[in-house]
Amino acid sequence: MKFIDGGICAAEGFKASGIHCGIRKNRDKNDLSLIYSEVPCNAAAVYTLNLVKGAPLTVTKKHLSNGIAQAVICNSGNANTCNADGIEIAETMSTLCAEELGISADDMVVASTGVIGQPLDITPIKNGIPKLVNSLSHDGCDSAAEGIMTTDTVKKEIAVEFTVDGKICHIGGIAKGSGMIHPNMATMLVFITSDVNINSEMLSSALSGDIQNTFNMISVDGDTSTNDMVTVLANGKAGNKEITADGENFKTFMKALNTVTVALCRKIAGDGEGATKLLECRVNGAKDLKTAKTVAKSVICSSLLKAAMFGADANWGRVLCAIGYSGADVDVGRIDVSFKSKAGEIPVCKNGSGIAFSEEKAKEILTEEEIEILVSLNSGEYSSVAWGCDLTYDYVKINGDYRT
Amino acid sequence: MKFIDGGICAAEGFKASGIHCGIRKNRDKNDLSLIYSEVPCNAAAVYTLNLVKGAPLTVTKKHLSNGIAQAVICNSGNANTCNADGIEIAETMSTLCAEELGISADDMVVASTGVIGQPLDITPIKNGIPKLVNSLSHDGCDSAAEGIMTTDTVKKEIAVEFTVDGKICHIGGIAKGSGMIHPNMATMLVFITSDVNINSEMLSSALSGDIQNTFNMISVDGDTSTNDMVTVLANGKAGNKEITADGENFKTFMKALNTVTVALCRKIAGDGEGATKLLECRVNGAKDLKTAKTVAKSVICSSLLKAAMFGADANWGRVLCAIGYSGADVDVGRIDVSFKSKAGEIPVCKNGSGIAFSEEKAKEILTEEEIEILVSLNSGEYSSVAWGCDLTYDYVKINGDYRT
Repeated sequence: MKFIDGGICAAEGFKASGIHCGIRKNRDKNDLSLIYSEVPCNAAAVYTLNLVKGAPLTVTKKHLSNGIAQAVICNSGNANTCNADGIEIAETMSTLCAEELGISADDMVVASTGVIGQPLDITPIKNGIPKLVNSLSHDGCDSAAEGIMTTDTVKKEIAVEFTVDGKICHIGGIAKGSGMIHPNMATMLVFITSDVNINSEMLSSALSGDIQNTFNMISVDGDTSTNDMVTVLANGKAGNKEITADGENFKTFMKALNTVTVALCRKIAGDGEGATKLLECRVNGAKDLKTAKTVAKSVICSSLLKAAMFGADANWGRVLCAIGYSGADVDVGRIDVSFKSKAGEIPVCKNGSGIAFSEEKAKEILTEEEIEILVSLNSGEYSSVAWGCDLTYDYVKINGDYRT
Repeated sequence: MKFIDGGICAAEGFKASGIHCGIRKNRDKNDLSLIYSEVPCNAAAVYTLNLVKGAPLTVTKKHLSNGIAQAVICNSGNANTCNADGIEIAETMSTLCAEELGISADDMVVASTGVIGQPLDITPIKNGIPKLVNSLSHDGCDSAAEGIMTTDTVKKEIAVEFTVDGKICHIGGIAKGSGMIHPNMATMLVFITSDVNINSEMLSSALSGDIQNTFNMISVDGDTSTNDMVTVLANGKAGNKEITADGENFKTFMKALNTVTVALCRKIAGDGEGATKLLECRVNGAKDLKTAKTVAKSVICSSLLKAAMFGADANWGRVLCAIGYSGADVDVGRIDVSFKSKAGEIPVCKNGSGIAFSEEKAKEILTEEEIEILVSLNSGEYSSVAWGCDLTYDYVKINGDYRT
């Protein structure tokens, strides 16, 4: 497997585009994106568990009930959530785009991201759709990735090439993250495309399995968004024999999918609102998987630890504190903790108690942009990884006045 | 019932003191406190549910197993937690202080607060104890309240006077809060004294019942400390007939206790690390108590809402979002939300959707220092209140480099 360029257009038969249609005031930023497959795709999606759900999710869920989709439209700048006319607006968005593309409205995935509870005016979207469709190209991934960004500071795209059944296959993805990131069974907006030939049942199984160890293991601020969604579209253009059951080909697909999703997770966490550092908590030696995941997620979610990492302060007591209140049943007296980055690794806690370490070396390690927090529970064979970011002045600044 | 001065010395027979013994580098700040009753007290306590527990909690729990205590010693600047010799240090602290007071070491409550995982040197405490004991006075509440502060910016003390059985009674309390505040069944350090005559069983019952609606309903940062503890000492000096069962006198005691604890909760939340505002989320119309509490707590814990409140931004969508992911089973389409302060009240959401409101008026309301977030679920008769604070640049600053 190798990483390649092209993002969501890396797979055969996919085009994308992104334009500024006028939802956002900033004319330099795209606010409307489109992903299109030349042929209908098998499709799967997972959605937020938040009881308050964005109207586009309801519409997409209905459209995907037959496991088929051919295009994705997504706007940024407004979440179209908690609006009395939300469903109607999302349906209209789908229908207008489908008409312009000459496909069925039922084959549209529709998504929105931005502020909650403000009416979404359909006018700029309606006026923008002809241009959006005309702009579709095999080089359109960048424009589309930009069109779904909110407070993201960098575009998030990735693609891999691999072989199934002797055929060259691709999976690519784009994501938007930044704030309100604490997915639960589903996640922020992620659109994945593939040319692998796989039926929608296996595609759904692959996605549902993968997110348990990827998008459900990242947190920026503990807030689970109302509009989280991950979708994957596979159009079969790679020409491999259709994957219809578990087996070697499915495992190869799963591995490629996981490579894409882990890369997107790291990008989302590292570009969390205001973040200056990517935090990766690696837990091993847990007595079961649930314990490993609970501990990793609790450490990554601690506001106190996140602020300490911002300050490059090796305050490992906050790691132990977060493990202690995680709800996981752990033997505190067996816990070891180290901090690691490309500047080196430093053990700071052994058997639940502090050990002497060089503050200078610790500071050097924690000043890097990617920090690993290594936790050994020394009670079993299970491990887990969670991703997060530091808590900074800019997180507060960005969220202190997001709407204006 | 009336509020009076004197804090923990308002009740008959209690003295207190606080000194700088040298644990902290800042010589202008007290770091060792003592509370003493002239006679043994019935006593009760609740402790953190964090699996990582401060050594002082283990020692205190043992000492309180007979329901009797006579004095409380507490240092700030070091939590005496995750240290291999922690229990031994906490026992020594108790024994040295008890010897100087001429009481049994078993009647000592011992507590520590500050950084986790750094060895606590007994020397400054040992050297300070004679002065600490000599400084005991009926006016010592202020000095003691200062001695338990960490990043608190204001001392937290309160006292009330009321009548039980024709006798004038008192309950007073001091607290330290600020960071790592998200209690679970127990809380930050709170010491409550009373001269009411009440047996330790009823005292324990009163405390356990009260904290469910008070200290367990506040959050500063979602982190549950390793050293949380609330203790109440009652010496019976008011001379009322001993309270040994439920009834009118017990209810009067509970009401006075609740007045003290709610006041301390508001002080702790309002002085959360870096906080500029006290947030109070009042939920009503819930179908059961658990729903009301879950919703109130989730709203108060949302980093996004906390940052919006710092920016005086009426971003009510974040209130709905936090309700939606709280895990409570609510009918989103029935939710109403208003913001309220002494500058007025403004409805912003009706039946789960946004309504038109004056941004100018909302800004005026949210610029005040005490904000109420009013949530009506319109699905039943239960209500709950939770307290929190805004998320500010200073929270990040304080926690970015706490140890140095």
